[in-house]
Amino acid sequence: MSLWFTEKQTDSFGITAKIKQTLHTEQTDFQKLDMYETEEWGNMLVLDDMVMTTKKDEFVYHEMVAHVPLHTHPSPKKILVVGGGDGGVIREVLKHPSVEKAVLVEIDGKVIEYSKKYLPEIAGKLEDPRVEVKVDDGFMHIAQSENEYDVIMVDSTEPVGPAVNLFSKGFYAGISKALKADGIFVAQTDNPWFKADLIHQVYHDVKEIFPITRLYTANIPTYPSGLWTFTMGSKIHDPLKVKEERFQEMETKYYTKELHHAAFALPKFVKDLTE
Amino acid sequence: MSLWFTEKQTDSFGITAKIKQTLHTEQTDFQKLDMYETEEWGNMLVLDDMVMTTKKDEFVYHEMVAHVPLHTHPSPKKILVVGGGDGGVIREVLKHPSVEKAVLVEIDGKVIEYSKKYLPEIAGKLEDPRVEVKVDDGFMHIAQSENEYDVIMVDSTEPVGPAVNLFSKGFYAGISKALKADGIFVAQTDNPWFKADLIHQVYHDVKEIFPITRLYTANIPTYPSGLWTFTMGSKIHDPLKVKEERFQEMETKYYTKELHHAAFALPKFVKDLTE
Repeated sequence: MSLWFTEKQTDSFGITAKIKQTLHTEQTDFQKLDMYETEEWGNMLVLDDMVMTTKKDEFVYHEMVAHVPLHTHPSPKKILVVGGGDGGVIREVLKHPSVEKAVLVEIDGKVIEYSKKYLPEIAGKLEDPRVEVKVDDGFMHIAQSENEYDVIMVDSTEPVGPAVNLFSKGFYAGISKALKADGIFVAQTDNPWFKADLIHQVYHDVKEIFPITRLYTANIPTYPSGLWTFTMGSKIHDPLKVKEERFQEMETKYYTKELHHAAFALPKFVKDLTE
Repeated sequence: MSLWFTEKQTDSFGITAKIKQTLHTEQTDFQKLDMYETEEWGNMLVLDDMVMTTKKDEFVYHEMVAHVPLHTHPSPKKILVVGGGDGGVIREVLKHPSVEKAVLVEIDGKVIEYSKKYLPEIAGKLEDPRVEVKVDDGFMHIAQSENEYDVIMVDSTEPVGPAVNLFSKGFYAGISKALKADGIFVAQTDNPWFKADLIHQVYHDVKEIFPITRLYTANIPTYPSGLWTFTMGSKIHDPLKVKEERFQEMETKYYTKELHHAAFALPKFVKDLTE
């Protein structure tokens, strides 16, 4: 017998991955959580039947969320990650020597618990002394913060279930308030093949609040269409004007300083969404 | 009842697409040919159970095969497309006003026949007077050509079945001979997530023959991993040194002059394959 997990990425298209075993399955207080061991991708975290991360390709998403804003900011010290309970973004954040404190606010403690258990290569750095983990509502945390963070990263699920508030204009306004005067915000904003309207909406909402708003992309093979977008809002620093000497030597598998710039060169049909 | 077509992109991973109807299915002299009407992607051409092209995303592949070398060459006049029986590359080639003749050598006439019937938006330009269509073996055509083409594009299937010869060093040597003294060659060279060894091999084989060898990528959602590579071999002209004024105004949905450069900025794990 062979078991396959299929994610319907739209009503009529999906990906399918052969399963060696189901490691855990649970309805948490917030979502359905499954952890599979897959043949192709190694251990795979699935929330509400959507692939969140896998051992084999996780580096793309986590590096591209973290290193683009952290190189754009000249000296990021205090970082907030909203969501991201698997710990992958935190692991990349900690590669930056200027970072003194990284706060993770994840609404679902079970995501942290089972990532630590089954994805230790990703979640291991959550134990670092510079990291503070809060199991809490990211929307509320943002609402209660003011002039506090250099960079805020929103590593959420799709805008369904617990993350729906994280794609609202009120949330972006709260983020702006929670950031320092030269702060930077980045969020994952889904894919342009199936969610063009969402990207258009988020981009223009963020643009109303942040003087510098830019979209960039990365290839994530287990995410819908393989082409993922990130929307960045910045008060002062422009990701396209990072000085050569700002780029740090660090071990990465996807991010390079050349790719930092190239990721902002959008396919025409994606660029059109920003106009 | 609902029918789904599943392509196993590896032994343990694949994509699956809901089918409205099967338009045609046939074992040709060379391969299994299926044409499906899908819900998500429109009409879809499948050869030996691998998606070749779909109405919705075909523009990415066809634009990126054609426009990168054709902007790199200062004045491409005579073009050869090996494979590419769906006609999509030819359609893009004809957008360049310098092109006087485009020869298509496709081994399987059935691909041309059913593309014209079911993918007319893609194959329609095969009727253009500048186009010569030959149903013939591309490998043999190359072997018999000398100092003839400005640009040769290899739009083949994977290196199984009829295309296996098109991934050999002897073929690249033949292409060099078939090209003029400042000619350029480009081939699709699969994806770095599942076929890293192939890319490494082809890149280094091409590099032994062409002074300028470069890899570039594009996002093709219906191809394995969504990240596709193209390998370019050039005798003189460098795709990274195209003069600003060389870029033509033309209608595209993916290619832009910014993306022309950005496509060569490789993810670190892909760049490593070229070293």
